[in-house]
Amino acid sequence: MTDLALDLVRLRAAYAGGLAPADVVREVYARIAAAADPGIFTALTPEAEAVTAAEALGAFDPARPLYGVPFAVKDNIDVAGLPTTAACAEYAYVPAADATAVARLKAAGAIVIGKTNLDQFATGLVGVRTPYPVPVNACDPALVPGGSSSGSAVAVARGLVSFALGTDTAGSGRVPAALNNVVGLKPTVGAVPTRGVVPACRTLDCVSVFATTVDDAHAVFTVMAGYDPADPWSKDVPRGPVAHPPVLRVGLPTAESLRFFGDDIARAAFDESVADLAALGATFVPVDLEPFYAVADLLYEGAWVAERYAAIRGFFEANEDKVHPVTRAIVGGARSRSAADAFDGLYRLAAARRALDPVLAGIDLMVVPTYPSPVTLDEIAAEPIAANSRLGTYTNFVNLMDLSALAVPGRFRSDGRPGGVTLIGRAGADGLLAAVGRRLHAAVRPTLGATGLTLPDAPPPAAGVPDGLIPIAVVGAHLSGMALNGQLTGLGAVFVRAGETAPDYRFYALPGGPPHRPGLVRVAPGTGGRIALEVWALPPAGFGRFVAAIPAPLGVGVVRLADGTSVQGFLCEAAGAEGATDITATGGWRAHVAAG
Amino acid sequence: MTDLALDLVRLRAAYAGGLAPADVVREVYARIAAAADPGIFTALTPEAEAVTAAEALGAFDPARPLYGVPFAVKDNIDVAGLPTTAACAEYAYVPAADATAVARLKAAGAIVIGKTNLDQFATGLVGVRTPYPVPVNACDPALVPGGSSSGSAVAVARGLVSFALGTDTAGSGRVPAALNNVVGLKPTVGAVPTRGVVPACRTLDCVSVFATTVDDAHAVFTVMAGYDPADPWSKDVPRGPVAHPPVLRVGLPTAESLRFFGDDIARAAFDESVADLAALGATFVPVDLEPFYAVADLLYEGAWVAERYAAIRGFFEANEDKVHPVTRAIVGGARSRSAADAFDGLYRLAAARRALDPVLAGIDLMVVPTYPSPVTLDEIAAEPIAANSRLGTYTNFVNLMDLSALAVPGRFRSDGRPGGVTLIGRAGADGLLAAVGRRLHAAVRPTLGATGLTLPDAPPPAAGVPDGLIPIAVVGAHLSGMALNGQLTGLGAVFVRAGETAPDYRFYALPGGPPHRPGLVRVAPGTGGRIALEVWALPPAGFGRFVAAIPAPLGVGVVRLADGTSVQGFLCEAAGAEGATDITATGGWRAHVAAG
Repeated sequence: MTDLALDLVRLRAAYAGGLAPADVVREVYARIAAAADPGIFTALTPEAEAVTAAEALGAFDPARPLYGVPFAVKDNIDVAGLPTTAACAEYAYVPAADATAVARLKAAGAIVIGKTNLDQFATGLVGVRTPYPVPVNACDPALVPGGSSSGSAVAVARGLVSFALGTDTAGSGRVPAALNNVVGLKPTVGAVPTRGVVPACRTLDCVSVFATTVDDAHAVFTVMAGYDPADPWSKDVPRGPVAHPPVLRVGLPTAESLRFFGDDIARAAFDESVADLAALGATFVPVDLEPFYAVADLLYEGAWVAERYAAIRGFFEANEDKVHPVTRAIVGGARSRSAADAFDGLYRLAAARRALDPVLAGIDLMVVPTYPSPVTLDEIAAEPIAANSRLGTYTNFVNLMDLSALAVPGRFRSDGRPGGVTLIGRAGADGLLAAVGRRLHAAVRPTLGATGLTLPDAPPPAAGVPDGLIPIAVVGAHLSGMALNGQLTGLGAVFVRAGETAPDYRFYALPGGPPHRPGLVRVAPGTGGRIALEVWALPPAGFGRFVAAIPAPLGVGVVRLADGTSVQGFLCEAAGAEGATDITATGGWRAHVAAG
Repeated sequence: MTDLALDLVRLRAAYAGGLAPADVVREVYARIAAAADPGIFTALTPEAEAVTAAEALGAFDPARPLYGVPFAVKDNIDVAGLPTTAACAEYAYVPAADATAVARLKAAGAIVIGKTNLDQFATGLVGVRTPYPVPVNACDPALVPGGSSSGSAVAVARGLVSFALGTDTAGSGRVPAALNNVVGLKPTVGAVPTRGVVPACRTLDCVSVFATTVDDAHAVFTVMAGYDPADPWSKDVPRGPVAHPPVLRVGLPTAESLRFFGDDIARAAFDESVADLAALGATFVPVDLEPFYAVADLLYEGAWVAERYAAIRGFFEANEDKVHPVTRAIVGGARSRSAADAFDGLYRLAAARRALDPVLAGIDLMVVPTYPSPVTLDEIAAEPIAANSRLGTYTNFVNLMDLSALAVPGRFRSDGRPGGVTLIGRAGADGLLAAVGRRLHAAVRPTLGATGLTLPDAPPPAAGVPDGLIPIAVVGAHLSGMALNGQLTGLGAVFVRAGETAPDYRFYALPGGPPHRPGLVRVAPGTGGRIALEVWALPPAGFGRFVAAIPAPLGVGVVRLADGTSVQGFLCEAAGAEGATDITATGGWRAHVAAG
């Protein structure tokens, strides 16, 4: 079974074919032993316990999205019964309860294998700021593993688990992903509850996901996400797969504002990824990154480092000598920051976010390198803070700006080192990033992590309506590419799918315009035609504004689809269609318009 | 003209009758001279300039909501050309531009008369922390005038101006209103831009309104409110008058959690106001105030005082000896607060707000005394900080909790001193507070401030759909008091008005239920009946959720009203009404249900 692939597609296929989760668990422990890297895990679930958990799952249940899926948890996230150390043995405690995110994964059938190493207190992007052995980079042992979620990234890259949880405040869920050739999903702030997570910066912390494929990472995110009233930072955020939109506006950093610190190979690798995106149909909008860098400066040069101190103040004051020297220097620096400094930082951030609103409104997402240039163990030893800071060039501003992000492996650089890009979206755009990221990843024809396995050939996850969005069926000028489609996208709509109505409708070209509009009128079942439509989904406020602007005789009601489902959509009052031209025979507005 | 009432109703009537704004301005300056209180104003617009501004308005223009209305501005808000002192002469500067709020008022026709005294840097609720003479309380010279907006409250109470702007961070727009028997409107945080305001706590500051009537205060608010992209704290908030809702759930503090500090007269006065609210049809829900007091403690005992320091740090460090000694002690105390303390405060607030969400969700508004007990000049001299703090008992938590508030004068206390209650609403509930507050104020049969004038007899302002809300006409089980009305109010709906459709509809009792539902189907103009409806208005997200939940054969489209207007409302597909009972003749669902 040593050739077993742990990605969700192949693992589920194996389970459906009769494989037992307990056998997978035993294989995982054998691999961990064979990997012989004492830096990856800080603690393991006793194998017998994991096997028992696997056996307790019973027969394969396709309704459990993570049935029998082995995963690892960064050691600043609580797993009941295993110590939480945050890579500081003196800080350790054994939690009685799982973190909310872990509990939701277990409920979906996933099995905790162990806790993983990290930069102490999740402060760092390198993975070497730990009292434990440093995990070995899975792609190139000369490189740092990346951090702070070092063990999680390496565990996934080496095929030891299907996925691993990290945390991400400044890039800890993205930088180690890129350094180990795996996917790193940094959700919208607040989308995944942080209850049971050792805080770094409470207002910015995110539970993140490392996986070998975008689909896997997003599936895990979908299970973990959801409002938790007991978490003050929890938000209700759309979740669930969405379809790739017909039109995609990608913010592309201006050449002058990109920072590679002299690494021309990195610049060439980034250009390749941009070309891949272009080949997928993206249109690019130039974006100056300098104002984003100014936001990033607030994170360590400004007051937010005080959150790291506030998170462990009592421990730090009593045990300063027990803290890793680099971490101590960084976190201890917060003592000299005043409350007024903190508020000054909040003011500067608020102003910067407001100033960048128009930039973000003009694009669907932004693409940046995940890091400027890979960092070697020698370099970080020589420059423990500066080399770390460079790694955060493209990640530090993201959580402060309340953005979502997805680190996708790129083609390997010409020197054989891993690279990759990060897609950055608005808060709530996690589904869009996954829809674009899966296609971009496939374009790379990647091997997965350091496993030598290739990307499984799988259709996109069935794109439904993301939780929290409201679907609407459009049949006329709001169809993609047509005159009024921008009204939808301007309100935050995402494309769900194309389809057609049940054969219960008459379709009319209404008088007036431009824009010219059709009207859909329900008639007795089976006595009408099937009319082409598209389903889009909107946030509630956008749906509200959209519906409120619909003129007579059009309105919104329940539309029956040919596949037996129903969805709210455009309808026309029967009285409003009297005298209009019946165009039912055309089958839809696009065909009618094309026919002139 | 010394009997001229400056409230908007009587002033506009006078303008409509031919009165010239320049004559009103001259009368205002005569009154200021006659008032002989050097503590009210810190600076006046030169009379000749104000007369010129009045003459520049031209003939009466009813489209300008504040045509020729004289007003005063607290001296921490910029008026171009007049010094902004914040009651600290050494801090003063002469701004080149008006604050956004002032500019909007001028554009609506209002005329700046002068700048008013305040507790220095808006820190205080008493009005005595000023290097200038203390304004004399308009109702009782033994009492403090209240602060920090002392001069604004007294200027309005003495009939010198129609209204005055204050600011409110901890209660500065409410406490002095109650101490001078005028209305104090503290808008939703962010509803009125704060650009051009000397900050106290930037994240909490509100521009507030003092006026003699609720309608006047709300009219001024409506002119000032509106998103300003240049103000990072600006929000898009519904504005404009709303109707009094048919049902009103009022949070009433439990007796144990009310604090009067031994003032039984105050307790009795509060009970009177509660009885007034009950007589207006309110239903009460008990609310424990203790968790709100815990939030209030954060404001001065916690980190927010650092915002006051951050706001003037450079000046304070260079000129500490120029600062009022009490203010110096308070603001200087922030120096010892660390950035970690600031974040700790933010965490505690976030948790408290989340914990109180369910309490606020169960009520439409809350009623509290505006202050526990009036404070005399002797008392504040004896206890400069403690007596001040007591005044903020019912105000300090409001801005931290992101709530709106309206201080309404009550019946005079049995000892002849002024009292009053504050209505507290959710963010965005400013219109609801005004709708309820105007009726409560009328129930008091008040004299206005210290003018001796009575409340003008005026109908409620024409309640339209507040800006930012979306109207929807309902014709069935969503009518007020009927089975599904709670779906509307639960989504934040406000009642707009009752009405009926144009005679272009057939009305059907649909099969199914409970709840039983009707269907409205448009027919040829004039060939149907007039059907009773109610118009409600929802925030966009609420409108979206509401429409998304409407089942077939119902939908939302444009409904024509008998008065010639149109509004989105419930419609029924013609195909869905086939075979249903035609109840057009009943004239509406309420009549149909009543007829059994």
